[in-house]
Amino acid sequence: METAAIYHRPESEFAFLYQPNDFRVRLRTKRTDVAEVNCFYGDPYVSTTDDLTNNSGSSHWDYQTIAMHKIATTEDFDYWEAALQVPYKRVQYDFEVVGQDGQKVLYGDRGVFPFTTELIGTNGNPFRMPYLHEIDRFKEPDWVRHTIWYQIFPERFANGDKDNDPVGVKPWRSDLSPNRTDYYGGDLQGVLDHLDYLQELGINGIYFCPIFKAYSNHKYDTIDYLEIDPDFGDKDLFRRVVEAAHQRGIKVMLDAVFNHIGDQSIQWQDVLANEENSRFASWFHINKFPVAYEETDNFENAKKLTFDTFAFTPHMPKLNTANPEVKQYLLDVAAYWIKEFDIDAWRLDVANEVDHVFWRRFAETCHQLKSDFYILGEVWHNSQPWLAGDQFSAVMNYAYTETMINGIVKHSLTPSRMVDGLNYQRTLYQRQVNEVMLNTLDSHDTARLLTVCDHDKDLMRQILAFTFLQEGEPCIYYGDEIGMDGGNDPDCRKPMNWDETTQDQQLFKFYQQLIQLRLQNADLLTQGEFIWDQVDDDQQLVQLTRRQDDQQITAIFNLGTQPQPVNVSGELLLSQNLIDQQLLEKGFIIYSQSI
Amino acid sequence: METAAIYHRPESEFAFLYQPNDFRVRLRTKRTDVAEVNCFYGDPYVSTTDDLTNNSGSSHWDYQTIAMHKIATTEDFDYWEAALQVPYKRVQYDFEVVGQDGQKVLYGDRGVFPFTTELIGTNGNPFRMPYLHEIDRFKEPDWVRHTIWYQIFPERFANGDKDNDPVGVKPWRSDLSPNRTDYYGGDLQGVLDHLDYLQELGINGIYFCPIFKAYSNHKYDTIDYLEIDPDFGDKDLFRRVVEAAHQRGIKVMLDAVFNHIGDQSIQWQDVLANEENSRFASWFHINKFPVAYEETDNFENAKKLTFDTFAFTPHMPKLNTANPEVKQYLLDVAAYWIKEFDIDAWRLDVANEVDHVFWRRFAETCHQLKSDFYILGEVWHNSQPWLAGDQFSAVMNYAYTETMINGIVKHSLTPSRMVDGLNYQRTLYQRQVNEVMLNTLDSHDTARLLTVCDHDKDLMRQILAFTFLQEGEPCIYYGDEIGMDGGNDPDCRKPMNWDETTQDQQLFKFYQQLIQLRLQNADLLTQGEFIWDQVDDDQQLVQLTRRQDDQQITAIFNLGTQPQPVNVSGELLLSQNLIDQQLLEKGFIIYSQSI
Repeated sequence: METAAIYHRPESEFAFLYQPNDFRVRLRTKRTDVAEVNCFYGDPYVSTTDDLTNNSGSSHWDYQTIAMHKIATTEDFDYWEAALQVPYKRVQYDFEVVGQDGQKVLYGDRGVFPFTTELIGTNGNPFRMPYLHEIDRFKEPDWVRHTIWYQIFPERFANGDKDNDPVGVKPWRSDLSPNRTDYYGGDLQGVLDHLDYLQELGINGIYFCPIFKAYSNHKYDTIDYLEIDPDFGDKDLFRRVVEAAHQRGIKVMLDAVFNHIGDQSIQWQDVLANEENSRFASWFHINKFPVAYEETDNFENAKKLTFDTFAFTPHMPKLNTANPEVKQYLLDVAAYWIKEFDIDAWRLDVANEVDHVFWRRFAETCHQLKSDFYILGEVWHNSQPWLAGDQFSAVMNYAYTETMINGIVKHSLTPSRMVDGLNYQRTLYQRQVNEVMLNTLDSHDTARLLTVCDHDKDLMRQILAFTFLQEGEPCIYYGDEIGMDGGNDPDCRKPMNWDETTQDQQLFKFYQQLIQLRLQNADLLTQGEFIWDQVDDDQQLVQLTRRQDDQQITAIFNLGTQPQPVNVSGELLLSQNLIDQQLLEKGFIIYSQSI
Repeated sequence: METAAIYHRPESEFAFLYQPNDFRVRLRTKRTDVAEVNCFYGDPYVSTTDDLTNNSGSSHWDYQTIAMHKIATTEDFDYWEAALQVPYKRVQYDFEVVGQDGQKVLYGDRGVFPFTTELIGTNGNPFRMPYLHEIDRFKEPDWVRHTIWYQIFPERFANGDKDNDPVGVKPWRSDLSPNRTDYYGGDLQGVLDHLDYLQELGINGIYFCPIFKAYSNHKYDTIDYLEIDPDFGDKDLFRRVVEAAHQRGIKVMLDAVFNHIGDQSIQWQDVLANEENSRFASWFHINKFPVAYEETDNFENAKKLTFDTFAFTPHMPKLNTANPEVKQYLLDVAAYWIKEFDIDAWRLDVANEVDHVFWRRFAETCHQLKSDFYILGEVWHNSQPWLAGDQFSAVMNYAYTETMINGIVKHSLTPSRMVDGLNYQRTLYQRQVNEVMLNTLDSHDTARLLTVCDHDKDLMRQILAFTFLQEGEPCIYYGDEIGMDGGNDPDCRKPMNWDETTQDQQLFKFYQQLIQLRLQNADLLTQGEFIWDQVDDDQQLVQLTRRQDDQQITAIFNLGTQPQPVNVSGELLLSQNLIDQQLLEKGFIIYSQSI
């Protein structure tokens, strides 16, 4: 057994309160190396306090033992988990790890020791969770588990009001690629007008790209966080959008761009005018006055920046969120849109580059106003530092969806490497985090899914079905559902196609079915057990089962080009390219069973 | 090479801002398994942004490479570290790990891959520290590095005022073992009267066990956090103690018992009187009304407790620190003693059982009032969850000192296992955390050091010298310095021996020398490089060097009973049992060198 691969960390994704009174411990071991793991646990004061008489004659008489079960395998590791019931909210625990080679060790806070019963719970060796505080628990907003997100880029979704069109607006053409600085006149009235459409599709959460007053068409360069951009409408209109959405059971998420502000804001303009004497000078990270920059078409010019920015973009000066005045200003912004407009969630742009002290206070502010508020960070890499329960509810699960795309669409990962990668991502976080992740296959920042799939709609259906069976919630980028394509920004930002004659109605129907399937099984698909029944690189077959109580849903994906025999043993829920119930071409089947 | 043993974690003790502009990365590998580790790093936007032209023709043209050096070896692992300079405060990095067997891998956010140059910095593989925020940095109070602590148990240090003696006070006898409920009349006037003594000893920080109004002699069952216990004096007197201490350059640390309150407090008494109708009912964790308990002489009775307590002690009901009213009350207490009395530090009793949300706000409160305030948690196990920079400054380093005692005093660890264990503890935390740890060899909760050493004063001197050369600051338990002994509580709480004829003046002088040695070399001994030159289990020799700039201090310890040849190559600072400069009996030598 490779004892150097054994890993655990208290108060992390390896030791967390999943639900009140349901404490989870995990252990990592080298892949295929370990036959059995048991967890010994008990109250720290019972086993160590002299005052409490040991009635049974053993020094660990109150210790419980629980067998851990394997929950995931990655390329290098196996992960084991157990759910502990802890009567006095305090617990200490060690692990007995039994190798395939018969070696037995006890692993705890002081490391790995040859296993002896006497060692259990002694000598400071156990790991400790000193007291399981509900206030420290990662609390996911339950409604998110029942949500299908729909991302709207407001300038391009629908033009409902010609009166607020920007000067020089271009004709609404969904078949042409926009230029970076084009305007098409999309607005909030357009969203309001199409809520019926969204309801028909079946989604129940809208994720809006920024709608606050800003300079560009994408509105990521905020001018005023407290105003709706006049191109999009006004506050009355936005209030009506939220109310109408809520009436339809649709949640509303806004995009908060707090890492940086637009250079057209009064704050930055004041700095440009008054330099170090500006009352806003300390709002930014200015390394040298006078502030200077050149357009950043190469790195030598980027080096001339005298202030910190988003990337090397001088038009997006970075905000100093450690400055109490800035902090309070942005917290007030966060609170304002919740209190006054009843929004349900914030999506946080470039969330990873803002300090943790700010995000902790941000989360407190939001949750005080709305206890089930959802906070979604834009983080593209391992997001553990934000997902401990004190900051975000979830992140945009790019690493996860990228792994799916690499496996299913691009075939740059074999099925087994894809599954290893997905498992790895899932083991990075506490269970309830995975259950509220936002799984987006494309967005305003990437090529559209159909284009990524090289216009192969079978492939697109396949990865969509796969995505909808994962724990986190799917997010649909506007227009994907009726067959819009597009390469990287700005091509992925074409105006929505509202011409029913050229919309792909078949695809729309498929989305509807998939959405219903997920919503009808939301608890099972978020919280249910996750089982990879079969991962076959030769046959290019992946079979997975999600299971909860006496229900299970199984799906088989044929990722290859050869038809493969399959067996539907239950009620067929959805399929693609299933021939005569027993032969699956490149496609999938999803079926349910009572067990 | 065992790739499953390779470990790194962003934003942890493996990746942290040590000083402004000094970012440290660490990597763990299997012991003796790896020949070389290099870290590749660069700005995330330079290597991944299309807008920035790649002038050099390489896709990673701004990447830097730094060789990592081994900083510690534990029983199972080697730890490597490098200091990175990061011009734009943003950094992504991967590790090249070269095995002793020649295998080369690249390790990053997505795992371990066979090494290729092309893979560096690509495909989402690098780890990310998105922006190095000073506000998130663990900031140690610098004065602590220059501090020698002295722990006072007020009821037993000195009786300076007979007028405030409790009823039934016993005669001041430092040679008799107290009973658990005895009173001897120690008080704050006694401390004030002996500040000259403490100054002569050379210490410059007093750590007071609780002094607030409480029921017992140990005062851990607080009645009123806003009053000095009348047995000890009053606020005016305490203010004079702090002022007089500060005049002598002595810092003052108080003990905050916030996990629980005493059952004689008005809050708990009100609960006993009014049960669920008490306005303090929500101040506690009451699982069932009426509140009930029996004295906890065995676990069956402990089970009858209907409320959460410290351990199973019904006289110490646990406070509900998640209740906003309780939280504010305790934060006000924390602030009061800083604002009104100018204390320098809080020691937090049972700190691990209070929630993190509370401690974060506690740290903010203290640091807003005094930016270099020191917060010391009582945590006996791995303390990573509290030492990320947002909560405590340090913990009482029990696991560390226990390992030293096991190696040097008890010989239950060989020298090499002791060194492995100490290294392991040091690798659990960021550098600056280790530099402000409180290293206590004994306390009011343990047997006294002399007793632990079985009255072998040579051995006592040896472990003291060893302790004073570690990074964290030593803490002397009152009376140890003049040869007091005592077993576990209550025997370790005997009244201080003020009879100079029976005080061990030799030992006192040794403490003075050791204190001066440490204070004169405080920067080197806290921040300097830590090198184990020699760890020899056969000869029972341990040689360690601390090095900073052009100075180093080396110490050799002979832990065995056989004399061993040694070589003093520098200025001898302190020694014990050194025969003719070249032969060391059970003892030690400490010498300094310019290099």
